[in-house]
Amino acid sequence: MKRKWSIGIPDDEFIRGKVPMTKQEIRILTIAKACIKKGDMVLDVGAGTGSLSCEAAMQAAGDGGMVYAIERNPEGIGLIQANAEKFGLDNIRIIQAEAPDGMDGLPELDAVIIGGSGSHLEPILDRVGGLLKTGGRLVLNCITVQTLMQCLNYMRASELYKYETVQVQVNRWEQVGGYDMAKAANPVFIVACEKIK
Amino acid sequence: MKRKWSIGIPDDEFIRGKVPMTKQEIRILTIAKACIKKGDMVLDVGAGTGSLSCEAAMQAAGDGGMVYAIERNPEGIGLIQANAEKFGLDNIRIIQAEAPDGMDGLPELDAVIIGGSGSHLEPILDRVGGLLKTGGRLVLNCITVQTLMQCLNYMRASELYKYETVQVQVNRWEQVGGYDMAKAANPVFIVACEKIK
Amino acid sequence: MKRKWSIGIPDDEFIRGKVPMTKQEIRILTIAKACIKKGDMVLDVGAGTGSLSCEAAMQAAGDGGMVYAIERNPEGIGLIQANAEKFGLDNIRIIQAEAPDGMDGLPELDAVIIGGSGSHLEPILDRVGGLLKTGGRLVLNCITVQTLMQCLNYMRASELYKYETVQVQVNRWEQVGGYDMAKAANPVFIVACEKIK
Amino acid sequence: MKRKWSIGIPDDEFIRGKVPMTKQEIRILTIAKACIKKGDMVLDVGAGTGSLSCEAAMQAAGDGGMVYAIERNPEGIGLIQANAEKFGLDNIRIIQAEAPDGMDGLPELDAVIIGGSGSHLEPILDRVGGLLKTGGRLVLNCITVQTLMQCLNYMRASELYKYETVQVQVNRWEQVGGYDMAKAANPVFIVACEKIK
Repeated sequence: MKRKWSIGIPDDEFIRGKVPMTKQEIRILTIAKACIKKGDMVLDVGAGTGSLSCEAAMQAAGDGGMVYAIERNPEGIGLIQANAEKFGLDNIRIIQAEAPDGMDGLPELDAVIIGGSGSHLEPILDRVGGLLKTGGRLVLNCITVQTLMQCLNYMRASELYKYETVQVQVNRWEQVGGYDMAKAANPVFIVACEKIK
Repeated sequence: MKRKWSIGIPDDEFIRGKVPMTKQEIRILTIAKACIKKGDMVLDVGAGTGSLSCEAAMQAAGDGGMVYAIERNPEGIGLIQANAEKFGLDNIRIIQAEAPDGMDGLPELDAVIIGGSGSHLEPILDRVGGLLKTGGRLVLNCITVQTLMQCLNYMRASELYKYETVQVQVNRWEQVGGYDMAKAANPVFIVACEKIK
Repeated sequence: MKRKWSIGIPDDEFIRGKVPMTKQEIRILTIAKACIKKGDMVLDVGAGTGSLSCEAAMQAAGDGGMVYAIERNPEGIGLIQANAEKFGLDNIRIIQAEAPDGMDGLPELDAVIIGGSGSHLEPILDRVGGLLKTGGRLVLNCITVQTLMQCLNYMRASELYKYETVQVQVNRWEQVGGYDMAKAANPVFIVACEKIK
Repeated sequence: MKRKWSIGIPDDEFIRGKVPMTKQEIRILTIAKACIKKGDMVLDVGAGTGSLSCEAAMQAAGDGGMVYAIERNPEGIGLIQANAEKFGLDNIRIIQAEAPDGMDGLPELDAVIIGGSGSHLEPILDRVGGLLKTGGRLVLNCITVQTLMQCLNYMRASELYKYETVQVQVNRWEQVGGYDMAKAANPVFIVACEKIK
């Protein structure tokens, strides 16, 4: 299949129901900071609609590259399948589980994306730390102060990672008659970590 | 050459002298919105340090994909060469000219990036419109109200394009002792256009 | 009447129907940059719900200070009256007109606030220029690129004013269960001008 | 003395040396959210250059209204004095101490502003809670994730307060030749608390 995008599928192309979705610009930056390359093994925790899984799968495609998508919600599972099919992506393996469950039997990972962590961030990070290879990347999206703080505390206490944090705010300027008018999207913290040991 | 990044080279990896450079997050979004694929013909107008040219060249590499980088400043020319070499990119052709000059003999284009336009935005857009193929993408970065307005006026008057505008603001949270502290980067308007005729 | 606020009435205190309203933080900054003092003569153009008129009236109250609120919409007229009454402000004169109409007979002005200008910004600015005293302040809120550009063009062409422009973005962090979660408000450009001649 | 501003003294009017200063827009919003009225008793913790103390003193002036400014740094003490004098404010009492020290003998307070807390935020909040009257306001400026989190944790654990949090980002658009160009200021979290018991 020939896709129009190599990164950054537009929001309205996804099949999504009412499941919240990571917006295009945040998806692009998350995937870019995860440094995913052809052949990579990638884990997407809390995959939701699969929007990040699909983007990751486009980057990893070829040479056996694979994306493992963990999602607990059955509606989400159906959406991930539908989106993978829509975009012709055959390298996504869906795991219905509530992370940190569902990681048994995963291969060594090149990159991990955590878009949604429910309330189990620490055990997820503990589990992921054992699977991620040295030099691998772990990228988290945080939309609450508490999740951000947990994440920063974990990274500061760990000797396994170095990290950088950016907060990204996107205003879309909509065309309304003769005017271009700002419509704000909620800001997202992106914490991009590299496993250095 | 094996590069670590497929998109989003970190800012401090570029050789840059004192020439201003498009920051990593803005570069990533600009390149993503340009929908550059393997084999594409790309033009980078006002290439500066070549940071956008290098990113575009990574996306276009293979199947004869090529990036044409127009830059008037001799210091810029040297930096583009040095960066292309550093990142092992052999598909960048540098053109020393002040746009819209320097576009004679270019092939039909899949994507055009305008990071810097000096004061010649309209003639550049006129020229580019003749080179860009239908379905091709034109992405502009604007850091002044005036350039943004010129660009919006042009797109609104033209029947060749549809466009979307986002304003992106990135705050970097620096690690200072036990604290993570915000450091704002200047916001950039990204106007992403698609040639529909 | 004893009011709880001397500046910055909370949004949900206003009677507003479905008329759009300037949010608290933008109101506060607009009023502050207008440098309104006790006894001042103030004009509010496109008063809407009267939220800016009420704030201005609190600052101007005493020594004969008065706010003239021009609004074309009958629903707005009723809201301005209701809000002035609710907050015990007896120094607001409501003028039902579409600016620049409605300014005949106004006294010399210390400050002018333009929250909404419909599509008549230039004739409004021409008219206001004749009423505003030297050293007086003119503050505009712009939510579109076009209005901002018109305003900047006017100020740059005029020798009557110096101006500063800020763009303000407010994210409200809502308390949702155990989390504080960002909710973005649309950014607003505030152009604050001082009449220097 | 007749001052030009009743709130929002421009940044470059302050005498400041190299001491960091709360920028005008953040100062305005902080003071507004503190709901300071004529006659109020106000405490400014970590007063720095005294910029917030001066703004608070303008609001509180009259009917015995007073601002107590705690600052540990001798350079700061001199700047607070110099600024109070420059703006003709005789209702600021400077206390050289490192908070929570320096609060003995303070009267019951209507409002407390915490612009800088060093590393003693919790004992400061404990101390302040005993001095602030019911219905009084406590407003904190946070520039790090850690200080914000400490503050939110304290407010969530306390039954004394309700609170709102906003993050404010200001871009100044500078006039450079024929262009208006964005210059970002660092975002600040403003936590505004009301003592409800």
